[in-house]
Amino acid sequence: MPARILVINPNSLEAVTSALDRAIDPLRVAGGPRIQCVTLSEGPPGIETQAQVDEAGAHVTAAIDRDRADAYVIACFSDPGLRAARERTSAPVLGIAESAFVSALTLGARFGIVAILEASIPRHLRYLDAMGLRSRLAGDRAIGLGVSSLADEAETMARLVDVGRSLRDTDGADVLVLGCAGMARYRTAVEAALGVPVIDPTQAAVGLALTALALRWRRAPQRGSVGR
Amino acid sequence: MPARILVINPNSLEAVTSALDRAIDPLRVAGGPRIQCVTLSEGPPGIETQAQVDEAGAHVTAAIDRDRADAYVIACFSDPGLRAARERTSAPVLGIAESAFVSALTLGARFGIVAILEASIPRHLRYLDAMGLRSRLAGDRAIGLGVSSLADEAETMARLVDVGRSLRDTDGADVLVLGCAGMARYRTAVEAALGVPVIDPTQAAVGLALTALALRWRRAPQRGSVGR
Amino acid sequence: MPARILVINPNSLEAVTSALDRAIDPLRVAGGPRIQCVTLSEGPPGIETQAQVDEAGAHVTAAIDRDRADAYVIACFSDPGLRAARERTSAPVLGIAESAFVSALTLGARFGIVAILEASIPRHLRYLDAMGLRSRLAGDRAIGLGVSSLADEAETMARLVDVGRSLRDTDGADVLVLGCAGMARYRTAVEAALGVPVIDPTQAAVGLALTALALRWRRAPQRGSVGR
Amino acid sequence: MPARILVINPNSLEAVTSALDRAIDPLRVAGGPRIQCVTLSEGPPGIETQAQVDEAGAHVTAAIDRDRADAYVIACFSDPGLRAARERTSAPVLGIAESAFVSALTLGARFGIVAILEASIPRHLRYLDAMGLRSRLAGDRAIGLGVSSLADEAETMARLVDVGRSLRDTDGADVLVLGCAGMARYRTAVEAALGVPVIDPTQAAVGLALTALALRWRRAPQRGSVGR
Amino acid sequence: MPARILVINPNSLEAVTSALDRAIDPLRVAGGPRIQCVTLSEGPPGIETQAQVDEAGAHVTAAIDRDRADAYVIACFSDPGLRAARERTSAPVLGIAESAFVSALTLGARFGIVAILEASIPRHLRYLDAMGLRSRLAGDRAIGLGVSSLADEAETMARLVDVGRSLRDTDGADVLVLGCAGMARYRTAVEAALGVPVIDPTQAAVGLALTALALRWRRAPQRGSVGR
Amino acid sequence: MPARILVINPNSLEAVTSALDRAIDPLRVAGGPRIQCVTLSEGPPGIETQAQVDEAGAHVTAAIDRDRADAYVIACFSDPGLRAARERTSAPVLGIAESAFVSALTLGARFGIVAILEASIPRHLRYLDAMGLRSRLAGDRAIGLGVSSLADEAETMARLVDVGRSLRDTDGADVLVLGCAGMARYRTAVEAALGVPVIDPTQAAVGLALTALALRWRRAPQRGSVGR
Repeated sequence: MPARILVINPNSLEAVTSALDRAIDPLRVAGGPRIQCVTLSEGPPGIETQAQVDEAGAHVTAAIDRDRADAYVIACFSDPGLRAARERTSAPVLGIAESAFVSALTLGARFGIVAILEASIPRHLRYLDAMGLRSRLAGDRAIGLGVSSLADEAETMARLVDVGRSLRDTDGADVLVLGCAGMARYRTAVEAALGVPVIDPTQAAVGLALTALALRWRRAPQRGSVGR
Repeated sequence: MPARILVINPNSLEAVTSALDRAIDPLRVAGGPRIQCVTLSEGPPGIETQAQVDEAGAHVTAAIDRDRADAYVIACFSDPGLRAARERTSAPVLGIAESAFVSALTLGARFGIVAILEASIPRHLRYLDAMGLRSRLAGDRAIGLGVSSLADEAETMARLVDVGRSLRDTDGADVLVLGCAGMARYRTAVEAALGVPVIDPTQAAVGLALTALALRWRRAPQRGSVGR
Repeated sequence: MPARILVINPNSLEAVTSALDRAIDPLRVAGGPRIQCVTLSEGPPGIETQAQVDEAGAHVTAAIDRDRADAYVIACFSDPGLRAARERTSAPVLGIAESAFVSALTLGARFGIVAILEASIPRHLRYLDAMGLRSRLAGDRAIGLGVSSLADEAETMARLVDVGRSLRDTDGADVLVLGCAGMARYRTAVEAALGVPVIDPTQAAVGLALTALALRWRRAPQRGSVGR
Repeated sequence: MPARILVINPNSLEAVTSALDRAIDPLRVAGGPRIQCVTLSEGPPGIETQAQVDEAGAHVTAAIDRDRADAYVIACFSDPGLRAARERTSAPVLGIAESAFVSALTLGARFGIVAILEASIPRHLRYLDAMGLRSRLAGDRAIGLGVSSLADEAETMARLVDVGRSLRDTDGADVLVLGCAGMARYRTAVEAALGVPVIDPTQAAVGLALTALALRWRRAPQRGSVGR
Repeated sequence: MPARILVINPNSLEAVTSALDRAIDPLRVAGGPRIQCVTLSEGPPGIETQAQVDEAGAHVTAAIDRDRADAYVIACFSDPGLRAARERTSAPVLGIAESAFVSALTLGARFGIVAILEASIPRHLRYLDAMGLRSRLAGDRAIGLGVSSLADEAETMARLVDVGRSLRDTDGADVLVLGCAGMARYRTAVEAALGVPVIDPTQAAVGLALTALALRWRRAPQRGSVGR
Repeated sequence: MPARILVINPNSLEAVTSALDRAIDPLRVAGGPRIQCVTLSEGPPGIETQAQVDEAGAHVTAAIDRDRADAYVIACFSDPGLRAARERTSAPVLGIAESAFVSALTLGARFGIVAILEASIPRHLRYLDAMGLRSRLAGDRAIGLGVSSLADEAETMARLVDVGRSLRDTDGADVLVLGCAGMARYRTAVEAALGVPVIDPTQAAVGLALTALALRWRRAPQRGSVGR
């Protein structure tokens, strides 16, 4: 039986899950792992505040506890529950923000993040600092639309291109990261409009999960004092 | 009516809360703010895993929602719910780990952390990196006792002194931070044994809360893109 | 007898000392430590050059030698004599710049500094680098007025608000630090005008001194090789 | 016609190429890209000095010029010619060291590198600094065997386990990176012996190349001034 | 017999070599080392791409192998072949970019780089990161002229001053580094126009070579594991 | 008339000045600048505490005010008065610690510092952080002898070699910096004993001063806000 990758959308928007599902289609191969996308209906209709991130983390770990897959992708750009999930299973667990950032490192010198809201940016910066990747950030700018507003295609597309252009031309980014799972449907168009690679974070995470499964990478418990 | 500071112990151990309560006694002054310590009985009997940290965060924000004080101290060294709490109120909210680290900056060149478990250390390091304070860390070493075992005074004291000595002599720390709210009762004795300042994180946080109240410091919403 | 905190203004401007004295009034509590402000009449009428900083350092350590208090605050934003003073006494010695920076860490994601002169900025940057806090700086901009010109209230206030607005809106600072002890009288008004917390560095330092006294924090001699 | 990934071994050892070829077998899927490994017979029998790295870089770019594939992997841990290759083609080009490091970021808190020779280590450190990833390095230790000596299986295996254990237990690494393409055949055994994930860099690079191909990631020309 | 310093211009432009030769004249003293400049006629007429840098590196090490001097200066701002050359000889080998950066550290707080092309900038940034000097960079801006176009004096001078002014006034650089050996002839005029020190990198490297020779500094082989 | 470099020994030990004078002899050339060494008899017999550093700074700037030379070297490893001196004159002023560190960057991957006392090490670390050079430090270890004890040749030599060996073998330093002007006389012997380059900081500073004079490098006033 082929392996199964569970892609968990921790917000309750089915439309976001559907778009994700289509976005990862190019990563499905005959005979390869089954990639299944689920919506956490108990989640909020968009994860925008830290309280929602914390709450989503609990939902994600519960979802992992009740549905054991061979690998997991947490499809929210705040990577809710990522550290807790990695404590509970040695199976690969990929956060989409972490995955997007590490993938961006191989595609350009400095990446730009297209955020949904200005309030998300301090969260991104703390996360990049915690990962040790701050020096590779060119800029982080918001389109000023919440998750549910991303369904308005004309407005969203216009803002994505506008913000992406500032990241490219003013901040010097040579690769862009979409800062929300709900932006997946726009990747190709934004890339075409701006001429720089654009990373959909869920795609990046599924790619890393496929490699981890094929090579049977397993994490070890973290431990060890620091000093000399 | 004097202001009130609510010190929230998010684990369910009343003994820890009692010890905290005694530890902050020197910060109580006649006519000054009332400092009240509460135990979250819905919490686990010790916060040691990331899942427990995430869960504690939800309890902390709920506690703040139901009991509005003039300032808050979150008395768990993982600072659970700190970012979410700061979204919900403009009143001062202090995490004890953050408070201990910033206080240590004024007392020595490089600080050492006495952790409870080895598994806590990667969490500390990510947090210090996220705060931008990693370069001031001399070392982080664990005593290998869970929160509930801290009640065994002889064993705990012996391990605290042993680990503290390594941080001081091998790692070059000139100030120590106790890495758990439950270590409060040992501060004075460890300091006497080792001859370097030892910071109880809850004390440090209450001190900062008192100053914030006296000076009416209020936080503003976080926002703002990054780039140039 | 209550403890005594000596706040040393190393410039010779009595008006600055008077303003400091009023600014720290909210930190005085009945039965708490006595907080006494002194002017070093031998100092220059404003500390603006590195030579004045170096000279002020000698005056500060001499002042500490001749008037032993329970804790000291050095009320000049260059923290003159701070390291030397800490060699001479194990009593708490707080520099106002160091105190303002560490306090800012608990109030926002990234702080902005309102400097007096452009020439002060490289000095601030070296100091922040030496403290390991550079990554938390949003921006550092000068109002272009020397210490003695801070007495012109209309002009000073206009420039403080103007520079503070640039730090907030262009640089993304969510907390501001006043970069001169002589700006104390403007804190409340600037905060009201800009809607972000504004730290008067002398207030921050006195707050930390009060906590240090209450908890009997003592520094240890610094030492220890670095390597592995 | 399926896409083709060209894996270039820039040293002249066919045995290394054969081992690589076997190692990436789990990443070959029916209907997926063809993954072809070639040996550059004009290369040296092991790339150990900086002069050999520089020379190998020229061979690699020449190889890319004469055999246009859909993606490339440069299978030498010094990533020779990587930057030059990326100038010449917008097709994905992966260096195995860069790929191993970014993959390690998703598998643990801090990685250890098992180097071939002590002389390689300063090169690794410069590269990690240039990538901005130094803070995630736990340690870098050498087995003291040149590339051609890696064919001695008993000796190599013993040293890999010995050095890997030091990285795990003394340096606190929770994921290991094999620092030479020629170590591929030992990955599984070292992982079994030490209980931490072990990354073969060529496998990591091929995994990233597969994702890049599936998602049609293309690099843009690098450019843009830096300042404000 | 006096010592001899060999200054190697790895591009084939004799005009660049002649200008270098004149630029280092102030460093020639009677009785001091002989400073000889050579052109590598096998090089390209300007080193602008990474492939040209890699190729130039091979030419440089070959040049050192065939003409043994007492010290070497590699007169191309990409420092081609620097690491390989240092493997081959314990005599001093100075790269002009490295030399310019370290010299700039003693002349100002933060330096600006005047690059030839935008495509050079990511290369500079990687190099500064690898050297650990990124925090001292104020800005890096390009004049948009290739090496061979630097012979057009009016156009080059206008652009140098224009870019230098942005580095000084917008980025806050208080010392400038000319980012190409071919800019040597303009140093004095740019310095006069802008009023900040301007470093010609070849001059800086020859200065360091003279000191290294006088003091008989010899490098040791690099080695040593990293960890604790 | 040839230019004159004034080398200022801010401690009162004539024996240190004599040793310096001999050490820089290889940098004197016929027709070149005159290099004159002076002892500040008003200084302490060794600069070991921060208070002595601050006091020495005032003496150094006074010395520069009363004896105008073409360039200055401050021959104490704490670089006392360096920033103030640079405010007072646009002539080159070199600190010996700064000069030693930047010279070390061209001689090895990571440098080790041989300190006099353990109490000096936190001062070195703050300085390296302020300069942005911490990542190039391999280790900093003390011989445990004050300045005046450096006259005991057998004891000093034994400790220098012992500490230097630890820096080389345990910390991985491939170049050593002598952390006191008073160690000048031992440089050649330590280098011979350990086989790695050893930098006498006064020699390094005089070398940089000679280059600065020959090329007429002048510093500009420092200024400029920081932000974006």
